[in-house]
Amino acid sequence: MRRGSLHGEIDLNAVTFFSPVQEEIKLIEERMRSQADESHPDLRAALEHLLAAGGKRIRPTLGLLVGNMLDAPLEKLITLGAAVELLHTATLVHDDLIDGSLLRRGMATLNARWSPPATVLTGDFLFARAAKLAAETDHLPLMKLFSETLATIVSGELTQMFSAHGLINRENYYKRIYAKTASLFEMTSRAAAMVSPVDEPEVEAMRDFGYQIGMAFQIVDDILDFNGDQAAVGKPLGSDLLNGLVTLPAIYYAEANPEDPDVLSLPIGGWTHAEHMTRLVENIRASDSSKKAMREAEEHVDRALGKLNVMQPCAEREALENLAKYIVDRKV
Amino acid sequence: MRRGSLHGEIDLNAVTFFSPVQEEIKLIEERMRSQADESHPDLRAALEHLLAAGGKRIRPTLGLLVGNMLDAPLEKLITLGAAVELLHTATLVHDDLIDGSLLRRGMATLNARWSPPATVLTGDFLFARAAKLAAETDHLPLMKLFSETLATIVSGELTQMFSAHGLINRENYYKRIYAKTASLFEMTSRAAAMVSPVDEPEVEAMRDFGYQIGMAFQIVDDILDFNGDQAAVGKPLGSDLLNGLVTLPAIYYAEANPEDPDVLSLPIGGWTHAEHMTRLVENIRASDSSKKAMREAEEHVDRALGKLNVMQPCAEREALENLAKYIVDRKV
Repeated sequence: MRRGSLHGEIDLNAVTFFSPVQEEIKLIEERMRSQADESHPDLRAALEHLLAAGGKRIRPTLGLLVGNMLDAPLEKLITLGAAVELLHTATLVHDDLIDGSLLRRGMATLNARWSPPATVLTGDFLFARAAKLAAETDHLPLMKLFSETLATIVSGELTQMFSAHGLINRENYYKRIYAKTASLFEMTSRAAAMVSPVDEPEVEAMRDFGYQIGMAFQIVDDILDFNGDQAAVGKPLGSDLLNGLVTLPAIYYAEANPEDPDVLSLPIGGWTHAEHMTRLVENIRASDSSKKAMREAEEHVDRALGKLNVMQPCAEREALENLAKYIVDRKV
Repeated sequence: MRRGSLHGEIDLNAVTFFSPVQEEIKLIEERMRSQADESHPDLRAALEHLLAAGGKRIRPTLGLLVGNMLDAPLEKLITLGAAVELLHTATLVHDDLIDGSLLRRGMATLNARWSPPATVLTGDFLFARAAKLAAETDHLPLMKLFSETLATIVSGELTQMFSAHGLINRENYYKRIYAKTASLFEMTSRAAAMVSPVDEPEVEAMRDFGYQIGMAFQIVDDILDFNGDQAAVGKPLGSDLLNGLVTLPAIYYAEANPEDPDVLSLPIGGWTHAEHMTRLVENIRASDSSKKAMREAEEHVDRALGKLNVMQPCAEREALENLAKYIVDRKV
């Protein structure tokens, strides 16, 4: 279950939703960069490295598109986008340290270059500056939402670490991907609406829009872990299962093949047998499980698109539609 | 340069400042404990362990005494106290992991019992819940102050890690102990006043009160590292110097003995030679450097007491005076 695995390849769908906010994304990156301005040169260099390795900025783009569509003040959207992306970056820094990952999006992770202590503290620094940026929006409900989302994300990671290995359980899976990914998409979209001159129904519609595309995003990530282009994904196929994480394609497969011995072995530690898991991954790849999982992701995207129908047609609405579609169309 | 090294011994001075808030401290601990209510049992057990190992709660006590003196709503002080103490606890969890410390206040640290990943995430969880509690005060300036203080603390740790080894520099030392310790005392005292029905001069007086006792607290900690009861302190004497951290007693000694070869060796890595540092620690112990450092701590306490003079006499004011005096009188 990777998170934020987008990388820098040109992608026409992506271009269509990034173009309305291209310049504003640069302002957000500038704001992120400035968080280390008064810090030690080594820390500035680390942030620079993380920014360079930084993926497509899909979360800040979501915030900008929603906020621009709803006439939010740009300054607040810039601050919100920088806060969200720094929070996301902080979780990746600690995740990579915890997993011992040496590469992310084809670039060296921080822990590949730095000591664990420096990596822990850099993650903490990014959390701290993200919270400070959230506070700079001067918007109390937004700050509360931000701190709640941070708590949701970290609690989810802990629960996964403590109890998710080998567990074949749909409810647990949905909770996990909500905490891991959808909560931050939901928060971003909702917060952008909260700082806009709109009423509660619009805020709720945008909250749900973010939730739905966030759920779809993680489901697709989990499908790509089985079916993606291995070079582009940058991990062995089925790496989640090899780490004991049972994601939606594996759940569909288990439901259709409850007597498969590899499935039966999962909850009792079978995931630690690499050769069994490689066989299971092959069986899942040969099955229609990923197709079924993709159908679920598409349903989320359809629900997201439904929320946009009530908005006035405009360039941002169109870009949000493209963003939602891109989430299920992407190859990496 | 230890942080928060108080332990549970009975101490008459301490009793006199804890007694007015004894019951309220229990409410704060209850609020802290409840942060893991919906979490995994292992995480609940970890928080329970951290609470049991939790020292004297000097920061929440400071907040309660200031707030009660100034008629703040108790509910906000409970929330503030829990937020501050959880933040403090989070920094200790990551500090102990980074330093590889196995004991704190005579009890096993979290990293002594758990894997590094679980320890990193538990620290993150505590940060997240601290931020959520700060948000629950529903007080925008307090939340901003809280997130700024978190950023100050973490930046200070990073700067120390990157650049403080062997550095003999007063300005750097004062900045370091402000970031490490005084900033949180300052924030606590200031925030308690901010949620009270008082004007800016009182808030500023209480901010400075917290700042002064925070600076004194860390200076005394650093003196105890040289002169404390080794069993009570729980570390080898001079452990800071052995780790390359030059604190105030060492700075006074260096200023008085600029030609001492061990002093000269410090900025060029001399602190890595344990036998030289043991000799230097002995020389510092035999000198009047700690006495000079203590004089500085006492000046901070005097300035703190001066801020209380403008307050109406009451039980809390007296307790705050005792708290300030305790900081320089304590033995551990």
